[in-house]
Amino acid sequence: MNLVIVGGVAAGASAATRARRLSEDAHIVVFERGPYVSFANCGLPYHIGGMVERRESLLVARPESLEGRFRLDLRLRSEVTAIDRTRGEVEARAIESGRTYREPYDRLILAPGASPIIPPVPGTDGRRVHTLWTIPDMDAINLAIQEGAESAVIAGGGFVGVEAAEGLRARGLRVTLVEKAPKVLPPLDPEMAETVHDLLRKNGVDLILGRGLVAIRDDGDRKRVAIEGGDEILADLVILAAGVRPRAELARGAGLAIGDLGGIRVDDRLRTSDPKIFAAGDAIEVTDIVTGRPTLCPLAGPANRQGRIAADNALGRDVRYRGSQGTFIIKVFEGTAAATGANEVRLRAARIRYEKVHIVGQSHATYYPGAEPMFVKLLFAPEGGRILGAQIVGGPGVDKRIDVLATAIRANQTVFDLEDAELAYAPPYGSAKDPVNIAGFVAGNLLRGDVEAVAPEDVPLDAHILDVRTAKERQSCHIPGSQGIPLDELRDRIAEIPRDRVTYAHCAGGQRSYYACRILAGNGIECRNISGGLRHWRVSPGVRGRLRI
Amino acid sequence: MNLVIVGGVAAGASAATRARRLSEDAHIVVFERGPYVSFANCGLPYHIGGMVERRESLLVARPESLEGRFRLDLRLRSEVTAIDRTRGEVEARAIESGRTYREPYDRLILAPGASPIIPPVPGTDGRRVHTLWTIPDMDAINLAIQEGAESAVIAGGGFVGVEAAEGLRARGLRVTLVEKAPKVLPPLDPEMAETVHDLLRKNGVDLILGRGLVAIRDDGDRKRVAIEGGDEILADLVILAAGVRPRAELARGAGLAIGDLGGIRVDDRLRTSDPKIFAAGDAIEVTDIVTGRPTLCPLAGPANRQGRIAADNALGRDVRYRGSQGTFIIKVFEGTAAATGANEVRLRAARIRYEKVHIVGQSHATYYPGAEPMFVKLLFAPEGGRILGAQIVGGPGVDKRIDVLATAIRANQTVFDLEDAELAYAPPYGSAKDPVNIAGFVAGNLLRGDVEAVAPEDVPLDAHILDVRTAKERQSCHIPGSQGIPLDELRDRIAEIPRDRVTYAHCAGGQRSYYACRILAGNGIECRNISGGLRHWRVSPGVRGRLRI
Repeated sequence: MNLVIVGGVAAGASAATRARRLSEDAHIVVFERGPYVSFANCGLPYHIGGMVERRESLLVARPESLEGRFRLDLRLRSEVTAIDRTRGEVEARAIESGRTYREPYDRLILAPGASPIIPPVPGTDGRRVHTLWTIPDMDAINLAIQEGAESAVIAGGGFVGVEAAEGLRARGLRVTLVEKAPKVLPPLDPEMAETVHDLLRKNGVDLILGRGLVAIRDDGDRKRVAIEGGDEILADLVILAAGVRPRAELARGAGLAIGDLGGIRVDDRLRTSDPKIFAAGDAIEVTDIVTGRPTLCPLAGPANRQGRIAADNALGRDVRYRGSQGTFIIKVFEGTAAATGANEVRLRAARIRYEKVHIVGQSHATYYPGAEPMFVKLLFAPEGGRILGAQIVGGPGVDKRIDVLATAIRANQTVFDLEDAELAYAPPYGSAKDPVNIAGFVAGNLLRGDVEAVAPEDVPLDAHILDVRTAKERQSCHIPGSQGIPLDELRDRIAEIPRDRVTYAHCAGGQRSYYACRILAGNGIECRNISGGLRHWRVSPGVRGRLRI
Repeated sequence: MNLVIVGGVAAGASAATRARRLSEDAHIVVFERGPYVSFANCGLPYHIGGMVERRESLLVARPESLEGRFRLDLRLRSEVTAIDRTRGEVEARAIESGRTYREPYDRLILAPGASPIIPPVPGTDGRRVHTLWTIPDMDAINLAIQEGAESAVIAGGGFVGVEAAEGLRARGLRVTLVEKAPKVLPPLDPEMAETVHDLLRKNGVDLILGRGLVAIRDDGDRKRVAIEGGDEILADLVILAAGVRPRAELARGAGLAIGDLGGIRVDDRLRTSDPKIFAAGDAIEVTDIVTGRPTLCPLAGPANRQGRIAADNALGRDVRYRGSQGTFIIKVFEGTAAATGANEVRLRAARIRYEKVHIVGQSHATYYPGAEPMFVKLLFAPEGGRILGAQIVGGPGVDKRIDVLATAIRANQTVFDLEDAELAYAPPYGSAKDPVNIAGFVAGNLLRGDVEAVAPEDVPLDAHILDVRTAKERQSCHIPGSQGIPLDELRDRIAEIPRDRVTYAHCAGGQRSYYACRILAGNGIECRNISGGLRHWRVSPGVRGRLRI
């Protein structure tokens, strides 16, 4: 059995080692264009930032080790240029020598990955303009810093752009991050991204949103970056971080089916339109388990898993890939942002109806040192309450809650299951009512009709707004025109609430105003709870200006 | 509607505040024997240890706040002594004045909690002998320390005993922890508890296992604690931490059904055998969702949830409690131990067949600073792979993985679902293959027959043991009589492996020896993988002595 694998990083390396574990006899050839196999792509910004000191530690598996332990036939700096499906051969080219040759296969696994998108503007190919996707990219950026670069423009606010910003700030550079969209991090909805914007700015990143790149020009030794709107930014270094696209050229050239999003099309056994050819990793389209639609999901976890499954099927097993949910997490200086499942944009695109709640939870019992708040958004089905997506921004413990919610989504759980979730509680780790439970309670209350919730942007301009925080809290900031009655005085002062119109109640995070709504409803007053309270109001595009601080 | 609630801590306070949210009209009376409502029982050891500085922060909700915000009729230091079910009244006694009176109820919720078990030996009622279950208990222990206590004996190695040990060590006391069983922390199986023993000893706790208390005597100002086997320990302070039992006396006296384990029997709406009386919290028996059997689960999370559900049903809703799974976590100095679902003892008692695997995982990508190993045990069904239980001991990130596994158990997931779990990965938070995935892979490999695993204690004394670690690792310790062939040399030296008997392969944590087993199997040699490697061997009772260090 000749197994040929195109690509030797995440999916390719996983496929190769899995294949060896399944068969001692197979001849396993791995072609990798770059000089390294199985390197830690996700660690690159952290070596730039100095958090990961040793460059070598990013080389997950050395070629010698892969060759020795797994008896792989590695062809580094070698590119597969064509697939001859009739003869069952690939055409390969050794990049340094230029030598071309053919390699036969019985089964072929394509794991070519993704490549950075280069914005279609002049100057992206100049010196000191780099992507950050490979070890050589990282080396080039590090060299520029060693040579004295003191400022950088990062073009793009996806994962790589945001992580690069942190890395460069850690090295003392002045950093301007330019993003064409009005917000960073596509998996986050606008109000959740807003907290990330605050974190970036607080840590000295000059953030320019809603304006794309126009051109990159030389200015002596420096770069002059022109952006939409006419401004120019002078910097020593430019990093292009405009996202990635699947490397599907080889598959396309071989006549394999390509999906509408430009990725290689595969079935649930990760088989392409040719039954002898499988594909895995950033280059393929997968099914989004929430929307049921094809999606691109260029993440390391799914890539590794897919590599393993492609090898299983290539070697005759029957193993299914059950789709992706896009679980992601990112460190943003002292904060953490994470998401799983679909966001509002994706749900609307897929015409899936949803409800949403926002809650503020604590990483652990507030009386135990180190507790920090987190802001949780939960999206769920109006009927039945199936969980459709979640987003969390905060600090410690965000990773835990997003993983619990990712597991819940994968298991088709509902918001009612979150109410019942029995999570591990001791004061250093959580609360008897975990943020996950609280999100479930608030969503459950909504679906049961115990309270009507409303997002800040849906509060009418002339609404009667009731602020149930304490007088002291109200002093520091409030919504102009709102009525202030602290929750604990509400019953005694209920006559002060107008009965001829709807009251929109809020507090800091949404819990006290929920209690207030129950009191008002019990007294026959129509009421809505402003979801997520001022915490949510403060970051909601469109209404955040309506706040007097 | 008169709603009477007996008990005002976790379940009782939750029931009371929930009831008010459901009804503005109900008259809600809460009887609490102690001087505090809704206090943070779980925080007591941390105030003793000084991690929680302010005593007041343990008082979660002040009486004034509960009375004002929720309009509760609180009766502190008041005991309900009897229930007159015919007339729908409880008999109450104000503890300080001794005044007795009757209070009518339409619905009654019993949330009396649990009380510490007092070992049946002489001297438990003496001075400087305390339980640690209430604020006054904590105050008494703190007073003893302020008065100069320099040493303590803790009788019992459950949660409270272990947490108290940490707290007292933090205050500089010499601590001896005496446990009648051969191990601490009942939810952990012996090999998992062994790591906790190591942590306790490493942090200066004198641990005496397998020997119970015989008597506590005075010796001048000090205490002389006699234990089984004839020894006596001199100390300034004794803490009784022998576990808790449900306070079911009131229910029993009223003729309500009591379960075999001594807890109040309830249905899934938390209704007792009297349809007007509900019960919640540490005093009730609940269904174990893994074994289907009744269990006692005196934990804060379930108690809060049950209080809410009891109130829902008492006020006419139909909400079901879907059982408990005993998810627990404990900080043990710099380490963390956690469990969810059933352990081996419970599975055997319930006659449920199971398989098990042990793996060593990392809290996050090893190249990013701060990664620490964790030791994961997974119990699952031999057919179908349903997850039955999990235990983890380690440091950072144990809480996350146990919560993911708790969610998976609640959702009836299998080990194959763990293989597919799409968890949040970035280098500071996890790995592309999370410990949860790895546990799933190893368990899946076992069920698919890709490898036969064997627990250290099941390796025959005369087995042929193959150590595939490097020569350097082998130097520091090894199993006497084992054959050492590093994994990367195995194919070349395969002729050295005997073919007439089974080879038991091991490495440090089980991964390399799994690769070795695949190589041996591919070469026609019968092989078993020693589950969890030396990490597991080292802590397995019975075999840990068979190691040359």
